[in-house]
Amino acid sequence: MSIDAKLKELGLEIPTPVAPVANYVPYVISGNLVSISGQVPIAGGKVAFTGKVGDTVTKEDAQEAARLCAINILAQVKAACGGNLDRVVRIVKLGAFINCVDGFTEQPQVANAASDLMVSVFGDKGRHSRSAVGVNALPLGVPVEIDALVEID
Amino acid sequence: MSIDAKLKELGLEIPTPVAPVANYVPYVISGNLVSISGQVPIAGGKVAFTGKVGDTVTKEDAQEAARLCAINILAQVKAACGGNLDRVVRIVKLGAFINCVDGFTEQPQVANAASDLMVSVFGDKGRHSRSAVGVNALPLGVPVEIDALVEID
Amino acid sequence: MSIDAKLKELGLEIPTPVAPVANYVPYVISGNLVSISGQVPIAGGKVAFTGKVGDTVTKEDAQEAARLCAINILAQVKAACGGNLDRVVRIVKLGAFINCVDGFTEQPQVANAASDLMVSVFGDKGRHSRSAVGVNALPLGVPVEIDALVEID
Repeated sequence: MSIDAKLKELGLEIPTPVAPVANYVPYVISGNLVSISGQVPIAGGKVAFTGKVGDTVTKEDAQEAARLCAINILAQVKAACGGNLDRVVRIVKLGAFINCVDGFTEQPQVANAASDLMVSVFGDKGRHSRSAVGVNALPLGVPVEIDALVEID
Repeated sequence: MSIDAKLKELGLEIPTPVAPVANYVPYVISGNLVSISGQVPIAGGKVAFTGKVGDTVTKEDAQEAARLCAINILAQVKAACGGNLDRVVRIVKLGAFINCVDGFTEQPQVANAASDLMVSVFGDKGRHSRSAVGVNALPLGVPVEIDALVEID
Repeated sequence: MSIDAKLKELGLEIPTPVAPVANYVPYVISGNLVSISGQVPIAGGKVAFTGKVGDTVTKEDAQEAARLCAINILAQVKAACGGNLDRVVRIVKLGAFINCVDGFTEQPQVANAASDLMVSVFGDKGRHSRSAVGVNALPLGVPVEIDALVEID
């Protein structure tokens, strides 16, 4: 099954890639690797979540935010592949930063929402290495930022 | 001297690789590069250290935690190499996240314990680039998380 | 125009590369990729800025600190290229860590000072992917640390 068919089956619509909020580019292709800039939970052109996990943001909302980051990563990967997501060989790494209170320790459970999306879309090719850490502040006040490294053919 | 002989000389036993605590994989091989997921100070299947450096965790304990992270990275690298650590060409990068109080500034000294281990095991091949930063929270409440990029043949 | 000529036009002098403050190396070359260790705002052998953005450090000072990090990255890239910056094919990624108070959300605006420098020196080859996150503490108490991935020929 093509990735586009899989996306349709999952009811996932890939949005227009989010433009960087600063003087950089959303992705760079170097050899077979695509480095994707940190993506934040923007949907429909608007920041969908702000705040700190463990304070004003629940774990469940943070998971939804992580999922939106993953969808925005997909949008950038699609652009990097000239629109053809079947060119993805492997999601190599996700780097997840969770804006949280000091006592929060479930960064992996939050990042899982992004990881699950990658596996549901790409199957074994979506199984990636990952780091997930807490931070005390993120751009635009969002609860989650995720960057990625992807191998394409 | 083979790396296995070196490990024996150092009295270092490589543990069974730690399974990810979430839906991802501990390493991904892309070309000659291995991306290793963030490793935490787990030993014998148990979290060996929790807490924040500068608060309940001393710098010395954090260094021991960093060393355990490095040992767990070695375990993943060994698995990625099909058991043969002589296939390591270069430890390319360590990314160290230190869970600490705001005023703590010795992240490099903590991360050194991991860096020293790599150099003691691999010699010049173990000399890596590195980032070491403080964070306010980490998975499972551990004081240190380290991910890695490794070149193998 | 050569990069050296461009640097001269910009009035930018590339300093002697900053030595690591710990047991690692400032860069590792793996294939065509150079991984640059996290650079801090050191100038003339001295730490130029310390403190937290939003507390004792203004956004403007943090931007100057980010620019110094970028200049120190350039110094390492130059060393990695054997002195010839024309060998740079692409600045692939900058990873920016901003030491800030919880409420600070302008990490991109701070990191922009580093991004702008790369583009002013390398033109389109300097346009990179990026992550920019807040953290609660950094080595030596500096407000900004930036690492990099660079493709060379």
